[in-house]
Amino acid sequence: MERKELLYTGKAKKMYATDQENVLWAEYLNQATALNGVKKDTIEGKGRLNNQITGRIFEYLAEKGIASHYIQELSETEQSVKRVNMFPLEVVVRNVSAGSFAKRFGMEEGIDLPFPVLEFYYKDDALNDPFINDAHVQVLGAATDEEVAEIKKQALKINAALIEMFKAIGIRLIDFKIEFGKTAEGEIILADEISPDTCRLWDIETNEHLDKDIYRRDLGDLIPVYVEVLDRLNKM
Amino acid sequence: MERKELLYTGKAKKMYATDQENVLWAEYLNQATALNGVKKDTIEGKGRLNNQITGRIFEYLAEKGIASHYIQELSETEQSVKRVNMFPLEVVVRNVSAGSFAKRFGMEEGIDLPFPVLEFYYKDDALNDPFINDAHVQVLGAATDEEVAEIKKQALKINAALIEMFKAIGIRLIDFKIEFGKTAEGEIILADEISPDTCRLWDIETNEHLDKDIYRRDLGDLIPVYVEVLDRLNKM
Repeated sequence: MERKELLYTGKAKKMYATDQENVLWAEYLNQATALNGVKKDTIEGKGRLNNQITGRIFEYLAEKGIASHYIQELSETEQSVKRVNMFPLEVVVRNVSAGSFAKRFGMEEGIDLPFPVLEFYYKDDALNDPFINDAHVQVLGAATDEEVAEIKKQALKINAALIEMFKAIGIRLIDFKIEFGKTAEGEIILADEISPDTCRLWDIETNEHLDKDIYRRDLGDLIPVYVEVLDRLNKM
Repeated sequence: MERKELLYTGKAKKMYATDQENVLWAEYLNQATALNGVKKDTIEGKGRLNNQITGRIFEYLAEKGIASHYIQELSETEQSVKRVNMFPLEVVVRNVSAGSFAKRFGMEEGIDLPFPVLEFYYKDDALNDPFINDAHVQVLGAATDEEVAEIKKQALKINAALIEMFKAIGIRLIDFKIEFGKTAEGEIILADEISPDTCRLWDIETNEHLDKDIYRRDLGDLIPVYVEVLDRLNKM
């Protein structure tokens, strides 16, 4: 397969076309951002770690019967993925109070929620990716009612599988953000990435942060933490 | 009927018990607040106008078969209402882009929405009444799934009736906030108030603001505008 023109540069990835119409080439960057891009750094090794962690997780989900855009690893920092039309939505699934949820409701972090709580955010940097409700999804034309129902169903299924996977490697899945896309055939599938950049992961024993909050909150060096997550996944 | 002890002082009303167990006594105050209480003023005559406007609107809705907590006017500034357990929710219905909605989506004000958009806000002054989604309603215990469905159904019915009513008096109903409560018998009904404090009302011809944005945005004297709304309702 041959890499062709650059299609898109995101905060943490570059997406290229390939010589196959329905296959894209994702390159994971060493860039870390937080606060919607206000905080920004280059962190050597981060691209490699997120590419491999995402690959391992998408492979695990495939074994559990959950489809994603992931095809295969191309190099330490690159992977091939199916071309999809992305929904302009960030889907957040919360199992435990933390981050903006805890802040919004004046709640301490670390409280188990009685059921997984789903939230939609509208992907628009200029608007700061605002939190929206289902009516907003419709009015913005981000997805139809049926698509929203399918996305919610898949998000809950992905959540159940990820909780089990992370538990097996001593990690509590606090919350995570996923994105979905639609294939040329009209199938809605998980896309983008699943990594410590997009999840809150706490060590089950110590409650230690094993995710990007290390960077967001200036808690120390991010690389050894991401290495720890990849090592645990590889030993699974 | 006799007025008994003060039960609650809100931003614009005092609620008293009466000698009848299931009847409360509402006194509308001359207080205006905005920005969640940061801006605050006494405006002579406002209590009288909102009490009478709310009374006229609840009477109109009753004629259209829509139940509310309203019983009758007791004086220029007072009305009797059914005692209900209030849901800790502000239900916002939007027909046209304006206010926080326009800001959130980087949209101009005054654009007709393709369908009425409902939003829930969690009533909690300390949290600044945060915008929430349906999952948050459940997780906060603010209402059950069935109650949310009933509240949404009633909100849309109320919206349709209010659009028609305001149109008949030359007013475009941009958006409004309502609240609901549950009677001792378990019936969910419209409660609180409907007034230029809780609606955005634009003159159909001139797009002039006939609501609290006059105060919020320092556009002039609020009283003549509220008098205008009451006069039009009384001529209906």
